[in-house]
Amino acid sequence: MSLSNTVIAEPRRTPSSKLTELHDRLMETRRLSLALADPLSDEDQVVQANDDASPTKWHLAHTTWFFEAFLLKRLLPGYRLFDETYEYCFNSYYEAVGPRHPRPKRGLLTRPTAADVRAYRAHVDEALVQMFAGDMPSDAAEIIELGINHEQQHQELLLTDILSLFSAGPLKPAYRKAKPGVSVQNAAPLAWSSFDGGIFEVGHDGKGFAYDNEDPRHEALIRPFKLANRCVTNAEWIDFIEDGGYATASLWLADGWNTIQGQEWQGPLYFEEADGGYMQMSLLGHRPVDPAAPVTHVSYFEADAFARWAGCRLPSEFEWEVAAADLPVAGRDLGADHLRPLPANADDGLTQMFGDVWEWTASAYLPYPGFKPAPGAVGEYNGKFMCNQFVLKGGSCATPAGHIRRTYRNFFYPHQRWQFTGLRLAADA
Amino acid sequence: MSLSNTVIAEPRRTPSSKLTELHDRLMETRRLSLALADPLSDEDQVVQANDDASPTKWHLAHTTWFFEAFLLKRLLPGYRLFDETYEYCFNSYYEAVGPRHPRPKRGLLTRPTAADVRAYRAHVDEALVQMFAGDMPSDAAEIIELGINHEQQHQELLLTDILSLFSAGPLKPAYRKAKPGVSVQNAAPLAWSSFDGGIFEVGHDGKGFAYDNEDPRHEALIRPFKLANRCVTNAEWIDFIEDGGYATASLWLADGWNTIQGQEWQGPLYFEEADGGYMQMSLLGHRPVDPAAPVTHVSYFEADAFARWAGCRLPSEFEWEVAAADLPVAGRDLGADHLRPLPANADDGLTQMFGDVWEWTASAYLPYPGFKPAPGAVGEYNGKFMCNQFVLKGGSCATPAGHIRRTYRNFFYPHQRWQFTGLRLAADA
Amino acid sequence: MSLSNTVIAEPRRTPSSKLTELHDRLMETRRLSLALADPLSDEDQVVQANDDASPTKWHLAHTTWFFEAFLLKRLLPGYRLFDETYEYCFNSYYEAVGPRHPRPKRGLLTRPTAADVRAYRAHVDEALVQMFAGDMPSDAAEIIELGINHEQQHQELLLTDILSLFSAGPLKPAYRKAKPGVSVQNAAPLAWSSFDGGIFEVGHDGKGFAYDNEDPRHEALIRPFKLANRCVTNAEWIDFIEDGGYATASLWLADGWNTIQGQEWQGPLYFEEADGGYMQMSLLGHRPVDPAAPVTHVSYFEADAFARWAGCRLPSEFEWEVAAADLPVAGRDLGADHLRPLPANADDGLTQMFGDVWEWTASAYLPYPGFKPAPGAVGEYNGKFMCNQFVLKGGSCATPAGHIRRTYRNFFYPHQRWQFTGLRLAADA
Amino acid sequence: MSLSNTVIAEPRRTPSSKLTELHDRLMETRRLSLALADPLSDEDQVVQANDDASPTKWHLAHTTWFFEAFLLKRLLPGYRLFDETYEYCFNSYYEAVGPRHPRPKRGLLTRPTAADVRAYRAHVDEALVQMFAGDMPSDAAEIIELGINHEQQHQELLLTDILSLFSAGPLKPAYRKAKPGVSVQNAAPLAWSSFDGGIFEVGHDGKGFAYDNEDPRHEALIRPFKLANRCVTNAEWIDFIEDGGYATASLWLADGWNTIQGQEWQGPLYFEEADGGYMQMSLLGHRPVDPAAPVTHVSYFEADAFARWAGCRLPSEFEWEVAAADLPVAGRDLGADHLRPLPANADDGLTQMFGDVWEWTASAYLPYPGFKPAPGAVGEYNGKFMCNQFVLKGGSCATPAGHIRRTYRNFFYPHQRWQFTGLRLAADA
Repeated sequence: MSLSNTVIAEPRRTPSSKLTELHDRLMETRRLSLALADPLSDEDQVVQANDDASPTKWHLAHTTWFFEAFLLKRLLPGYRLFDETYEYCFNSYYEAVGPRHPRPKRGLLTRPTAADVRAYRAHVDEALVQMFAGDMPSDAAEIIELGINHEQQHQELLLTDILSLFSAGPLKPAYRKAKPGVSVQNAAPLAWSSFDGGIFEVGHDGKGFAYDNEDPRHEALIRPFKLANRCVTNAEWIDFIEDGGYATASLWLADGWNTIQGQEWQGPLYFEEADGGYMQMSLLGHRPVDPAAPVTHVSYFEADAFARWAGCRLPSEFEWEVAAADLPVAGRDLGADHLRPLPANADDGLTQMFGDVWEWTASAYLPYPGFKPAPGAVGEYNGKFMCNQFVLKGGSCATPAGHIRRTYRNFFYPHQRWQFTGLRLAADA
Repeated sequence: MSLSNTVIAEPRRTPSSKLTELHDRLMETRRLSLALADPLSDEDQVVQANDDASPTKWHLAHTTWFFEAFLLKRLLPGYRLFDETYEYCFNSYYEAVGPRHPRPKRGLLTRPTAADVRAYRAHVDEALVQMFAGDMPSDAAEIIELGINHEQQHQELLLTDILSLFSAGPLKPAYRKAKPGVSVQNAAPLAWSSFDGGIFEVGHDGKGFAYDNEDPRHEALIRPFKLANRCVTNAEWIDFIEDGGYATASLWLADGWNTIQGQEWQGPLYFEEADGGYMQMSLLGHRPVDPAAPVTHVSYFEADAFARWAGCRLPSEFEWEVAAADLPVAGRDLGADHLRPLPANADDGLTQMFGDVWEWTASAYLPYPGFKPAPGAVGEYNGKFMCNQFVLKGGSCATPAGHIRRTYRNFFYPHQRWQFTGLRLAADA
Repeated sequence: MSLSNTVIAEPRRTPSSKLTELHDRLMETRRLSLALADPLSDEDQVVQANDDASPTKWHLAHTTWFFEAFLLKRLLPGYRLFDETYEYCFNSYYEAVGPRHPRPKRGLLTRPTAADVRAYRAHVDEALVQMFAGDMPSDAAEIIELGINHEQQHQELLLTDILSLFSAGPLKPAYRKAKPGVSVQNAAPLAWSSFDGGIFEVGHDGKGFAYDNEDPRHEALIRPFKLANRCVTNAEWIDFIEDGGYATASLWLADGWNTIQGQEWQGPLYFEEADGGYMQMSLLGHRPVDPAAPVTHVSYFEADAFARWAGCRLPSEFEWEVAAADLPVAGRDLGADHLRPLPANADDGLTQMFGDVWEWTASAYLPYPGFKPAPGAVGEYNGKFMCNQFVLKGGSCATPAGHIRRTYRNFFYPHQRWQFTGLRLAADA
Repeated sequence: MSLSNTVIAEPRRTPSSKLTELHDRLMETRRLSLALADPLSDEDQVVQANDDASPTKWHLAHTTWFFEAFLLKRLLPGYRLFDETYEYCFNSYYEAVGPRHPRPKRGLLTRPTAADVRAYRAHVDEALVQMFAGDMPSDAAEIIELGINHEQQHQELLLTDILSLFSAGPLKPAYRKAKPGVSVQNAAPLAWSSFDGGIFEVGHDGKGFAYDNEDPRHEALIRPFKLANRCVTNAEWIDFIEDGGYATASLWLADGWNTIQGQEWQGPLYFEEADGGYMQMSLLGHRPVDPAAPVTHVSYFEADAFARWAGCRLPSEFEWEVAAADLPVAGRDLGADHLRPLPANADDGLTQMFGDVWEWTASAYLPYPGFKPAPGAVGEYNGKFMCNQFVLKGGSCATPAGHIRRTYRNFFYPHQRWQFTGLRLAADA
């Protein structure tokens, strides 16, 4: 196995200051996963809400298995597998690794127990520490970097999957209380930023970590466009609902129309009409919808229909990337600890580009010109999903701090909406 | 609500010795449910293995709700509901009571927690004790009796549902260790008992508790028949498999053939070929099949096909009942604590009629002549299922002690086999 | 293959007057099938309306194949198969005969063409005539008798399947015009006939043809009962609808309730509310419901619920058979050529027992004591369906003249209702 | 309704020579549809092979309805609808037009009959002639042009749908005999043509008819690439099969792997191993696979996996368009009347770019920058399908003569393969 396509600029022999930084980031990531599971009972952690979601315990174990399978087993001499059956239990989708427990049945694994999984984590963490203590093999740092980013993705999934679970019962519990001291505010008025066309470099520039699907960096031809200063709000979405948006076929892609008819969708996921207003289930419990906050838990189908209704369109992934080129990679992500998207601040330029909600783009998730997945099992990480999905940009309120990049390409099927997914309008200049 | 069709011979004013006995039996039943859950973690208790099965926690809560809804709420003055949402969570199928959490989603209820449910049980147990302390209302004893029997049914389900869950993962854990000191033995050789025909009284005779579906007692015309001295064994079933039983269409009902083709059944549930022999998952873990023990986890379709292959047939429910008329109601039930069916002892007459495995009969589950379900919600207990199911007799190794009767009519769909279901051959005399 | 279980009283060597009668009946049956197809274009004849129904052309070919496979191929020396592929195309469900075209895809067989099938019929008819001309082998008459009855069953199916097809499009064409001169009339008022209990002989008495499932004749114990003088009418059914019958869970078997909820049934098949009244698609086209006529196209689930709503029950198959014992086997069947059920005449005793609509009984379709299916492929005719279905009695307006008997056991699944199925109320005496 | 986005360069007042040409092309197109149905019986024409396919009769009627709904009804004064129910029967997917018969039930429409539909065609043809005789309204020519192209698309579907139907039964009839005089030949050896990168104009240039999805013409940035001189052959595909292509997960997109596993695909549609070789059902009947001919009836998933196995990739739609820029738009299409793809001729440059098989590209079917669907119902023609599908180029052996263009964008879902779909390899230069 080689990870050569995972772009890391540093030379092969990682200097010790870098190693210290990597060690600390790794340990912090490992700690955060446990901290996210902390408000949950063992019962909460074992159940699978639906076929798209995984149990918390599974996330905790799978991210651990990732280090075991791709790092420790190969590169730590004398490493002892914690349990031989875990590869079957906790492999996600790596065909090259071998058979695995069927995805829709992850929630049936009451054994290994949550306590077993915590012991598994401790065992692997110890080996990871040991690895840093020794003579770090040449490609280990790359795999550790990938493992950190992999675990961060699962941290976001852990949260959205628990929300999915908690929304499925009558009690609708909060994962956690709302952070105090967030004042109610209005959303910034809608405004547009204009951008020139031209040929632009897109894709990862080789500085720091990136997934293989951000590579190769290449030129893209872009036409003049404009982008909304903020995400579409709940208030705007409610206008769409009340204008009959979900009942007007001409606004929808054919596959979208079939989906909303078949599923009887009348609003975003977790939305519910109540007493003339709208409630929405969230990580903070069942709460009134905040009109100023970005709409979230909408599918591509809905985002696309809304944009059409608004006389606009969604941006392409490259328009978004070009627009973000000079913006600081900062926003209300998981580090901000709100666990929900917040209203945009009044601002002159683009706001909310990072954090709050993932933004659907109009770009199908396809390989960049010259893309080659890494050889070996980790080559299955991104490449094999390049079909029937759409790219999302910018991260959300559940994306771990430090995980997002301008060139980051998240991807989901156009009907999926259990992530913190929203949208920003675009238009031709 | 009246329970008049639940046949209880005692006069309305229950004498205090009877009350003491009832109290003790109730408390023992309540204790047993918790004891059965004891080897299970909270994680084990929350998950639903499939649509037929329910989580342990749900069984513990639902049996408690039954007392709350049908007894305490109506007949204990000043009773305070433990939690108003529990009726929605833990009503099983009583349409007359109101809406309820969908059956296939019982496993999503991580909240209320296992600890909540234990507190709920304690709350209701306390109220039950209080009820006995006071002036017991006239129909309360009947409902308590029904509640005990209801909880006993769920105790059996709890065990078969946990087995279903534990068989679904790769670890295949044992619910408990095998009871020591059970010596390996051969099955008694197959022999036949003959019975005369005639008109016989069948159905419940009014002595002690019975479900409404055992009533009214009525005459049945029976032709001379003979019955095997014991249940069909695993060894005999393996002969059936190896003779191509699962590949010979002419042995099967059309619906059965469709089922085994569609589901790709090649043997009983949990059976697995391994190293030239057969293993089967059980409450005692994944173990070699005991050739002398009764085959179990077979569907009606399979039982019927086996009987045809053997040149015999299944008994009718009345043949079975007549044959059992003079036998003691005793066998290796849950009280014997083996948690698996054991080989028949060599014996002159009928053995294994009670305990070990439920025996499929050839009788469709239909109302007895003159059957009337009880008015009110408990009328839904048995009557509404009188369609497309078959009657089983005799109880199993998981049936609580004291729960079985000669007239007891268990019923399942012909494709179901996650219970401890087996068969005994019959033939015309 | 032997047909020994198809009960025919005549001695093996059939006298020539019997043979002449058999020949004439056979030819008349063969002619009737073609006559029934006559109002239909080749297009109408090829399409399959749904998985339960078959194309007209398939019925015409399958009934022909039946004679070829079970008679001519075996017993007519020198018989030449019309086409070797037809066995694959037109075998219905005889596993012992070999593989066959999948049932749900019968409507894809545009080849062989309708003209091919007509030629096939002519070829086989010619061979049948030839058979009568020669020295009829000993068991041929039995098979011919079975073949006649088999073809008659398919004549009824041909009509109900075409109705199903014609109801599926927007044009709702009539299969044929209504027979003129049928005056509008009221239904006879509901009245009851009472019957004593006792032990009665039921099942076929060996005189004339019967299917194997009517055998063996045996004793049945019957309790005193009463039976309505006529079938339930559309007017009564509309009362049931308007009293909320389809929205009242307590009236329904659990499986029935699931069915009507899942399928959103609000009335009989082909019923439609229109302008404050009701229309129903029929073989005579889309017509206003006749309030006095028997309700038809209701499932067992609906019949059972209606009877419960009416405070009555359905009769058992043996009650029905005993009640019919002294009645002439005569009614408005296909020979009467109305193609729809008509109102009951005012009469002192039981009316409509034969013809008009098939009457659901409360009896599960199970083998009679001592039942043995015929050896060989025709043993699959009836026996393998003895599970999950209910018995219907009396024939309908689409049952060919001469086809019905008192002991005739028709059977369908409890959710099926595309046949001319209705009900007659019963009650304990 | 306006068709302004359907790009037609001519001025609004069409000169009479143009009108004559349009009239003749229209009538020729109308005649061709009937000619294609000619080898089919009325039975063949009514059946629907599967949900993707439509009956021949439906194609004949729908293309006629298109002229009635979008042209005659609006623009021919005094036009009398042939039948008011036909709009419900024969509208395909135009939500703006109103409700319609469900697509998967098109095969249930035995009425209107094939004869009715032929009369409908004659009625509409007569009105079309009348339209040309009068003062042609300003936008009628545009709609007629669209109607011609629309009907041509259905001519191709008619053929692929009949093939689908004929493959579904055991007789596997030929739609027609093979054209005589086609000599067996080898495929040209694989060779590559190289192309420079740069900025190219793509999309329709406004000359002659085009669909709205080919518009607007715009600039695309292309990198140097090379393209195979011919399509992938059956011989090459058999190598792929025999090298385990269908059993090697690493070659497949995740959705593709799920598809081939779930559907148990082992080769192209209609492929069958027989006697050590391969047969394939075709319009000319069930025939041995021609090793030199282009593989056809492969899905995008398979085309993508094959390209990966071959160490190549699929071209983008723009690469294909640029490569075709200077080639004559000519090839073995329906006009060549072979009804099957033929081997490539040995040639220096690119062959088979037009005709033979549709070529899958790596491009998701998405709107061109600035795309706006036409207002009104015909705006549903192309735009609403821009999701989850892939673009195909070049036409096939079943594409009517004159229908194809360099900028033509056909589109299908990645799992679909009942069209004449194949592939041509590409690679980075």
